[in-house]
Amino acid sequence: MTEELKGITVKKEENFSEWYTQVILKSELADYSAVSGCIIYRPYSYAIWEKIQQEVDKRIKKMGVKNTYFPLLIPEKLLTKEKEHVEGFAPEVAWVTHGGNSKLDERLAIRPTSEAIMYDSYSKWIRSWRDLPLRLNQWNNVVRWEFKHPVPFLRGREFLWNEGHTVFATKEEAEKECIDILNMYTEVSKELFALYPSLGKKTEKEKFAGAEYSLSTEFFMPNGKAIQGPIAHHDGQKFAKAFNIQFLNKQGKKDYAWQNTWAITTRQLGVLIAIHGDNKGLVLPPKLAPIPIVIVPILIKDKEKPVIEKAKELAKQLNAHLDDRDYSPGWKFNEWELKGVPIRIEIGPKDIEKNQVTLVRRDTLKKEQVKEDKLKEHIEKTLENIQTNLFKNSENLLKKSTIKAKDTDELIKAIKNKKLVKTFWCEKQDCEELIKYKTSGAKILHIPLKQPKSIGQCVYCKHPGKVEVLIAKSY
Amino acid sequence: MTEELKGITVKKEENFSEWYTQVILKSELADYSAVSGCIIYRPYSYAIWEKIQQEVDKRIKKMGVKNTYFPLLIPEKLLTKEKEHVEGFAPEVAWVTHGGNSKLDERLAIRPTSEAIMYDSYSKWIRSWRDLPLRLNQWNNVVRWEFKHPVPFLRGREFLWNEGHTVFATKEEAEKECIDILNMYTEVSKELFALYPSLGKKTEKEKFAGAEYSLSTEFFMPNGKAIQGPIAHHDGQKFAKAFNIQFLNKQGKKDYAWQNTWAITTRQLGVLIAIHGDNKGLVLPPKLAPIPIVIVPILIKDKEKPVIEKAKELAKQLNAHLDDRDYSPGWKFNEWELKGVPIRIEIGPKDIEKNQVTLVRRDTLKKEQVKEDKLKEHIEKTLENIQTNLFKNSENLLKKSTIKAKDTDELIKAIKNKKLVKTFWCEKQDCEELIKYKTSGAKILHIPLKQPKSIGQCVYCKHPGKVEVLIAKSY
Repeated sequence: MTEELKGITVKKEENFSEWYTQVILKSELADYSAVSGCIIYRPYSYAIWEKIQQEVDKRIKKMGVKNTYFPLLIPEKLLTKEKEHVEGFAPEVAWVTHGGNSKLDERLAIRPTSEAIMYDSYSKWIRSWRDLPLRLNQWNNVVRWEFKHPVPFLRGREFLWNEGHTVFATKEEAEKECIDILNMYTEVSKELFALYPSLGKKTEKEKFAGAEYSLSTEFFMPNGKAIQGPIAHHDGQKFAKAFNIQFLNKQGKKDYAWQNTWAITTRQLGVLIAIHGDNKGLVLPPKLAPIPIVIVPILIKDKEKPVIEKAKELAKQLNAHLDDRDYSPGWKFNEWELKGVPIRIEIGPKDIEKNQVTLVRRDTLKKEQVKEDKLKEHIEKTLENIQTNLFKNSENLLKKSTIKAKDTDELIKAIKNKKLVKTFWCEKQDCEELIKYKTSGAKILHIPLKQPKSIGQCVYCKHPGKVEVLIAKSY
Repeated sequence: MTEELKGITVKKEENFSEWYTQVILKSELADYSAVSGCIIYRPYSYAIWEKIQQEVDKRIKKMGVKNTYFPLLIPEKLLTKEKEHVEGFAPEVAWVTHGGNSKLDERLAIRPTSEAIMYDSYSKWIRSWRDLPLRLNQWNNVVRWEFKHPVPFLRGREFLWNEGHTVFATKEEAEKECIDILNMYTEVSKELFALYPSLGKKTEKEKFAGAEYSLSTEFFMPNGKAIQGPIAHHDGQKFAKAFNIQFLNKQGKKDYAWQNTWAITTRQLGVLIAIHGDNKGLVLPPKLAPIPIVIVPILIKDKEKPVIEKAKELAKQLNAHLDDRDYSPGWKFNEWELKGVPIRIEIGPKDIEKNQVTLVRRDTLKKEQVKEDKLKEHIEKTLENIQTNLFKNSENLLKKSTIKAKDTDELIKAIKNKKLVKTFWCEKQDCEELIKYKTSGAKILHIPLKQPKSIGQCVYCKHPGKVEVLIAKSY
């Protein structure tokens, strides 16, 4: 077995796309599969996803949401019930046409999302205001047969997500939940992912197919592209009318219910990798790292035993991963840096003599000697510090990438320079289309929830603007 | 809103099939969906599945297994690589033929199981003995387009499961894991499900398509049918040869790897319902009950306040569910019995005067008055007692249903009487086929791991038997 070097061979700032691919494959987060556009979530990325699931699940259960599981397959006639919805999804549906050797009577869609199959049951289950709110969620896989160039995690034909589908008796309750969920996702983004989102409302053109409006988190990546993160849609009564979800209200009258839909997906793993990673590989925030601390013993001939013993003792005490494989320390340092482990502890014969260890933090790569009796406390502080530092870096990236544009020329220039543009818009769809056309594809990401007091003129038509918007190229 | 009665209208011993359906639908464990053969796992059953997942997941992680996620879709050419495997699964594959409006170049199977797609990657990842063992597991959904009559949980076209796929350098290691996994599933069956399994080895005819042998748990249901529970297959080198999973061993020579596959599925929820349920509905073992304790306040006009207050206090203290809905106590008792909640606590104005509550245990329906200061301790003991009692009932069911048969006549009679037959077999496949034919479909479930010292003659051909077997009709 040769010790093949697994390091990243390109620089993030020079060739982001190749850097991203190398990081994912070499750190063993994912691999390509035999199906084009579908990746394998290897244990290292799946372990991160499990942490995300646990944290989101804990929060939504506390809010009163319950988990459920609906069938993977959706009859074509159900999918077509809500017009905007089917138009949004039909072009990318994977269709099942045969069971064994038999042709099916009706084609079945692999769920691209589960509104159509869930709301068919909701219309049977919901009879009275007593049945509301109904707040269900699924953790599952969905398939969207996209034809764009796939990018692991960020764009693929199958991904994992949660899909919350909730029903309320009143618009007020539904809208309150929509904001509560957006805040929950924001908390998860900030506290666990150490990622700084922009919060806002999607435009009519960019909202979810079937929603009344969509509240999104948007992230900005170092390659100058934005990406939509976790999202919460308020569907109004649109689906309720399409699927006949009616209930007897407290006044004994029939009324259509009010609904929301919300999701966080494995795309978010891609955002995590892209924003925090560096030229040595992944950099994981401690709260999502499958291995927060690794211990690498430095073995010198005839002096192995006390080092191994001390390493084992520390691993147990710190709940750390001990790397006692038969590779050189240098190769191991390299691999754990590639895998983004937040803290590496090195321990050799000289450290033992001095009752100390060497601690290397992944975010800054700074080394320091720490006395053994201070180690536990020092590690706790360092983990917190790394988490905070990564968050600050992410906030800085967003802030330093954001520039203002007064007119189309400034906008075009900023987009060319891979910036995130903050500007004003008149809310006319024509201007939105032309902004996209003039910038060769940048779009209005959303209308930030925090709006300035005074709104300037529309970046495109120069008529009085109505809202401040964020514009960028996007995944 | 009328208080519609939701009770079970048939007796389990008189019409098992109708009883089973009513219990599932009325307790809101599951519902039918718009897709024939695919059920909805409603929150009440999904919460039980989540507990099962947590418990199995904890145990396999401790054993060193890691979770992963492979694509849902498998290219036809991969599925056909292992001959026995494809023959076993091809008749029930759901095929995807179109993505959006485009016909696919190659049909894609929705995974009926993931050997084919996983082992394609294993053959790339595994190079040396250092890469072994590789022990991966998935929690996912699979589709098998069966044409038999579907039964919720027990037989359907989509189910949830774990699928462990492990690879070892030696046969010994693989076989040891196979038994360890069987034991883990047995522990889960006994300790959580309170279900008593028979452990044994499947016959050549009944083993998993592609395995060298299969070790199964089998359960016997009150309707006289057996059902296969969690299972562990030792695949030998069969898949390794079909998918070219080779590694350099410590001696520097190339060798094919040794593999296992193992699973527990949502079928097991059906076994739980069928065995423990009674004429009032579900009976859940405390360790899997989503709600182990419910508190029902008995409200009498003008005396509500102290009762509600006490009920709230107890709910908090006991971590119990408080049912403060606006229904009559009788209606609530009925519903919680239907839902199989292990302990119900009733509290009314008279109980408060006496510093006591009324406690009703679901398994025996026995009522008792318990002083408030003894309540917590009493509940803990009662929950343990219910768990043990259900397990004993399940063991008794298996034992009293098992009878011995010396010859074909006795076998046929016993099967007609819905018994589980213990008898001897010569290990010839002809006799196995004829046993099935003569009994109109009963099959050899497995060869129990615990064999008697002396083996009698084959129940069919009367030649010297080689093993003791269990025979029954089966799902």
